[in-house]
Amino acid sequence: MFLRKSPNHVFRRLVTGAVVLTAALAPTFAYAEEVEYLTQSNANILWTLIAACLVMLMQAGFGCVEAGFTRAKSAGNIMMKNFLDFSVGSVIFFLFGFALMFGLDAGGFIGTSGYGLTGVGESDMMWTYTFWFFQSVFAATAATIVSGGMAERTKFSSYIIVSIVVTGVIYPISGHWAWGSLWLGDDGAGWLEGLGFCDFAGSSVVHSVGGWIALAGAMVLGPRIGKYTEDGKAKAIPGHNIPLAGLGVFILWFGWFGFNPGSTTTADNTIGLIAMNTSLAAAAGVLGAMVVSWFRYGKPDISMTFNGALAGLVGITAGCATVTPSSSMVIGLVAGVLVVLSIEFIDKVLKIDDPVGASSVHGVCGAWGTIACGLFNADGGLFFGGGASQLGVQLLGVGTFFVWAFGGGFILMTAVKALFGLRAEKDEELKGLDIAEHGSESYNGFQLFSNE
Amino acid sequence: MFLRKSPNHVFRRLVTGAVVLTAALAPTFAYAEEVEYLTQSNANILWTLIAACLVMLMQAGFGCVEAGFTRAKSAGNIMMKNFLDFSVGSVIFFLFGFALMFGLDAGGFIGTSGYGLTGVGESDMMWTYTFWFFQSVFAATAATIVSGGMAERTKFSSYIIVSIVVTGVIYPISGHWAWGSLWLGDDGAGWLEGLGFCDFAGSSVVHSVGGWIALAGAMVLGPRIGKYTEDGKAKAIPGHNIPLAGLGVFILWFGWFGFNPGSTTTADNTIGLIAMNTSLAAAAGVLGAMVVSWFRYGKPDISMTFNGALAGLVGITAGCATVTPSSSMVIGLVAGVLVVLSIEFIDKVLKIDDPVGASSVHGVCGAWGTIACGLFNADGGLFFGGGASQLGVQLLGVGTFFVWAFGGGFILMTAVKALFGLRAEKDEELKGLDIAEHGSESYNGFQLFSNE
Amino acid sequence: MFLRKSPNHVFRRLVTGAVVLTAALAPTFAYAEEVEYLTQSNANILWTLIAACLVMLMQAGFGCVEAGFTRAKSAGNIMMKNFLDFSVGSVIFFLFGFALMFGLDAGGFIGTSGYGLTGVGESDMMWTYTFWFFQSVFAATAATIVSGGMAERTKFSSYIIVSIVVTGVIYPISGHWAWGSLWLGDDGAGWLEGLGFCDFAGSSVVHSVGGWIALAGAMVLGPRIGKYTEDGKAKAIPGHNIPLAGLGVFILWFGWFGFNPGSTTTADNTIGLIAMNTSLAAAAGVLGAMVVSWFRYGKPDISMTFNGALAGLVGITAGCATVTPSSSMVIGLVAGVLVVLSIEFIDKVLKIDDPVGASSVHGVCGAWGTIACGLFNADGGLFFGGGASQLGVQLLGVGTFFVWAFGGGFILMTAVKALFGLRAEKDEELKGLDIAEHGSESYNGFQLFSNE
Repeated sequence: MFLRKSPNHVFRRLVTGAVVLTAALAPTFAYAEEVEYLTQSNANILWTLIAACLVMLMQAGFGCVEAGFTRAKSAGNIMMKNFLDFSVGSVIFFLFGFALMFGLDAGGFIGTSGYGLTGVGESDMMWTYTFWFFQSVFAATAATIVSGGMAERTKFSSYIIVSIVVTGVIYPISGHWAWGSLWLGDDGAGWLEGLGFCDFAGSSVVHSVGGWIALAGAMVLGPRIGKYTEDGKAKAIPGHNIPLAGLGVFILWFGWFGFNPGSTTTADNTIGLIAMNTSLAAAAGVLGAMVVSWFRYGKPDISMTFNGALAGLVGITAGCATVTPSSSMVIGLVAGVLVVLSIEFIDKVLKIDDPVGASSVHGVCGAWGTIACGLFNADGGLFFGGGASQLGVQLLGVGTFFVWAFGGGFILMTAVKALFGLRAEKDEELKGLDIAEHGSESYNGFQLFSNE
Repeated sequence: MFLRKSPNHVFRRLVTGAVVLTAALAPTFAYAEEVEYLTQSNANILWTLIAACLVMLMQAGFGCVEAGFTRAKSAGNIMMKNFLDFSVGSVIFFLFGFALMFGLDAGGFIGTSGYGLTGVGESDMMWTYTFWFFQSVFAATAATIVSGGMAERTKFSSYIIVSIVVTGVIYPISGHWAWGSLWLGDDGAGWLEGLGFCDFAGSSVVHSVGGWIALAGAMVLGPRIGKYTEDGKAKAIPGHNIPLAGLGVFILWFGWFGFNPGSTTTADNTIGLIAMNTSLAAAAGVLGAMVVSWFRYGKPDISMTFNGALAGLVGITAGCATVTPSSSMVIGLVAGVLVVLSIEFIDKVLKIDDPVGASSVHGVCGAWGTIACGLFNADGGLFFGGGASQLGVQLLGVGTFFVWAFGGGFILMTAVKALFGLRAEKDEELKGLDIAEHGSESYNGFQLFSNE
Repeated sequence: MFLRKSPNHVFRRLVTGAVVLTAALAPTFAYAEEVEYLTQSNANILWTLIAACLVMLMQAGFGCVEAGFTRAKSAGNIMMKNFLDFSVGSVIFFLFGFALMFGLDAGGFIGTSGYGLTGVGESDMMWTYTFWFFQSVFAATAATIVSGGMAERTKFSSYIIVSIVVTGVIYPISGHWAWGSLWLGDDGAGWLEGLGFCDFAGSSVVHSVGGWIALAGAMVLGPRIGKYTEDGKAKAIPGHNIPLAGLGVFILWFGWFGFNPGSTTTADNTIGLIAMNTSLAAAAGVLGAMVVSWFRYGKPDISMTFNGALAGLVGITAGCATVTPSSSMVIGLVAGVLVVLSIEFIDKVLKIDDPVGASSVHGVCGAWGTIACGLFNADGGLFFGGGASQLGVQLLGVGTFFVWAFGGGFILMTAVKALFGLRAEKDEELKGLDIAEHGSESYNGFQLFSNE
């Protein structure tokens, strides 16, 4: 017995030891998991922050493009609007825009929590700060698109109101429909998300919303003095600083590598593909717009080519994570062609004066990019054997965003016009908004032709 | 005995086995630790490097702002000074500036090792290289601030001497007082650190130092020809390229996301909060300066608004890691208001001609930001239940940096003036420093008004 | 026996237990390894992507430098060429450039697989996309260098053909010789790699190739009208926007921190050293060029100083990962001196009109940087006790790249000239390429001197 007991005793000790050792192993696994969590979670914050910085720089790009494509006498005013958009936008988006967009969902329509980022659990705060920053620069992008379509004739004080309503109400509410779940998960989900609407980085959510509001603004304002002859023929009002506009487009292109790949908000291995798709679409957009303008005008047009890059970028923004590089080129090429035709159509047929083509670049190409997801998505697109259901949802989204943003924009502009006046006085516009609205000129020392 | 011995023997083997196994486990833990160390340590280097690159780009921003806010006839000269600051600064900071700032501490006053990065242990070299690079772009920032206050009238060769002394002596020594421990830990700590002085990213260390030297330079130089009427009234000399200045401010804003969040020099989870604070303060600075200028001049002033962004950024630089987003907005708003009042005070009351407002933006708002830590720090600020002790240390630091930088700058400028002459000849200034100092013009082909 | 057996039995159980436990440990190790693999591999993609973005922004820098250093009447055309280079380049490099450069090696001369990134294994695709993106922006850099040397007189349609051949044939084939193994390892290795040729980030592969083709283009085109007097004396044709050029150089400097440190394509701990070397070389280049121009012209020349920065950057590109910071300064200083002498030599002695000095900055300094590896490499350089063998390989490489790029470029330009005409008509050049080739002007509203 003793003999049997002894080995048993030993064996029990052995078992005990094994259990103890196994228990000792557990923290090793847990530790490795924690290491993964910490380093990857830090990397996610790092990447999202860097991407947000690139998107923030797009404000500089928009400023350069919009100023470069318009006249010298209002260049400072345009820069001011960009500063204002970003500044008012950041504050408003902190106070309530973010909450309306990402807070607890109410009926699929609107978010309802997180005003001033209050009521957020300790453990999530660091990620929330980073996520807020990323989303705030997106909101400012939507707002700043509007300023382009309204350039050179808008009353500055009224524009501030427009900017506040765009960043604080119009953008976050429709943003909630498509992206509401990004912060609180299912608790924040909007109605379009539920249908499987695809808009990875915001062809619709950001760009078409901005573009359609710009269109409404340009309509309500009416054309710049001298834009149309008495018999209604459109006259080109060329930009005053093309190298500045070119620099701006390159800066925007650069910033888009934050906009699209950064929308993973995760430092995973897909960001390279998204960047590649983004770059190829922009390249194809350049080629599309250049070739079409060459055919139509006999020469490769500089402004159209620059806008072709932006068109390709806007076009790929929805599908950048879900289509192949080859599809990206097709999407960008079509966007580049579309933007030229759309700018002409809006300018010459609709006779709406959109000085920088914001409604075509962001509105039309944003809609195209959203539709393109339904056609080209590698998983679910019509051209990739997925049937028409994704396409249907995309079309629904495009229509919805148009109605909301153009309609809301139109009401907003009309209301501001009725209450405060939306347009600068005639003599102010002729003198230029720099001197009229801000009391200074942008190019002191340079001899300019009068009224330029 | 044998029986008892046998199980014991077995038990001893068991124990031995357990020890062996535990020993076998050790490397697993060690390995996981090493994994964490390696990936996180690589991530720290990655983040610090990227942040340094953003800060480096601020040189472009400073160049654009300073050139845009001054006249066309000296625009190239201003860009040259920025190139010179960064280039001489990098070399000097490698040879001895870094050592004076971060080397082994002597009496809390100065660092004494690491000249040319020699004498550094192998194992630390890779981190040291990265850290040096990050710190070198900070040093160049301090230097380049000075050039703005001395624009349009400083002799180029004399400016080189100024730049060398700033990056090689004035900046690193006072930098040691507040940040000396960042490289060697306690072995490098300066006296202000010991008191708990709070200046996370350099409202005082970088900005107020640069701003106060700029003030000294502007004073010793005297105003530009034509800046004051015979009866002492200040005349505005408007900048020649406002869109360029606006672009520059946006680039600086972008670069600040390296400046402030990057000052963690660690890819941890706090960087998102710091970026958010930074952006909100800049936004509030824009609004503060715009509104104040609107009240004072009847119109929202472009230059003041641009400077408001910079004021907010400078203001939040000290406290960006220790205050809440709401406090950041207050700090930025106050900075935006302050910068307008300060620019007017220095221009009209002190009658010191600081062409770009460098002493107000960086000196005054840098001091404000440093004081704000004593008021708003979530842990220790007066307004957050922390009593007045932090505030006291902050005020001591502000006073110390003013005495050191303004005093040292004044002595430096006076000495250079006596030895080599600090100011360009009158006819050189009238022709413009581009043609006078460099034999070329910046805007060939453009018709400029004479003396612009 | 039983007693002896019993402990043995127990011991056997113990051994079994140990084995089991050790087996249990294995996944822990494997897991930790996997964690390391995933987080580090994600970090590698992250870093390579960010670096690629910085390099992409260099297109903006090149656009600004080239436009700023030439005349207002062709500024938009130069920007167009930059857009075209990047856009056509991206598409071509996707379709076959990448395959020729990095595909399966044939005879050390050319890659033969990966057209349109087809035939790539699933598991590697995410890395391949990222790597492709990084390499595509390098290819576009080589192409865009060429446009500078051919500025202000090249027919736009013919330039498109040049750009396609450069990105699709000349660049990738010689690139294969030195970098072929970077994607497929030994299976893709080119002949120069086998000899131990050192060109870490492309002093030869990218810069000298671009520079030598630019030289060939400038030769075949002939000088701009008015560049040389009837008795063959060179006249300076000054740039129209020096602040824009300065901004461009700073943007390039910034982008180079993607170009050089990013060429690790790994987020390891060496990137800080590479960045430091890059920055010190640029700084020294500024000082070298400034001092030499000061001696030669009596004043520190702005354009030369700007080019000095680029010279230093090009010079350190080959050796940035293999030399010390002190050596970097020497390499950059020599490059800064060289670029001034080379620009004068090409302009005044060879009488080749290279409007922005592309052949000197990128060709000559690229060759210098490649040779410098043979002199300064810490492991293998002549000055560091490594004998002359590395230097010999470097000289072989320099010669090879010159013969290939200048020779190939010359054939290309001559063929395009014969088939389509390479140069714009005389009256087009006089009017400026903006209006002649694109039907618009870059600075509407500004009064320019005629023919500027």
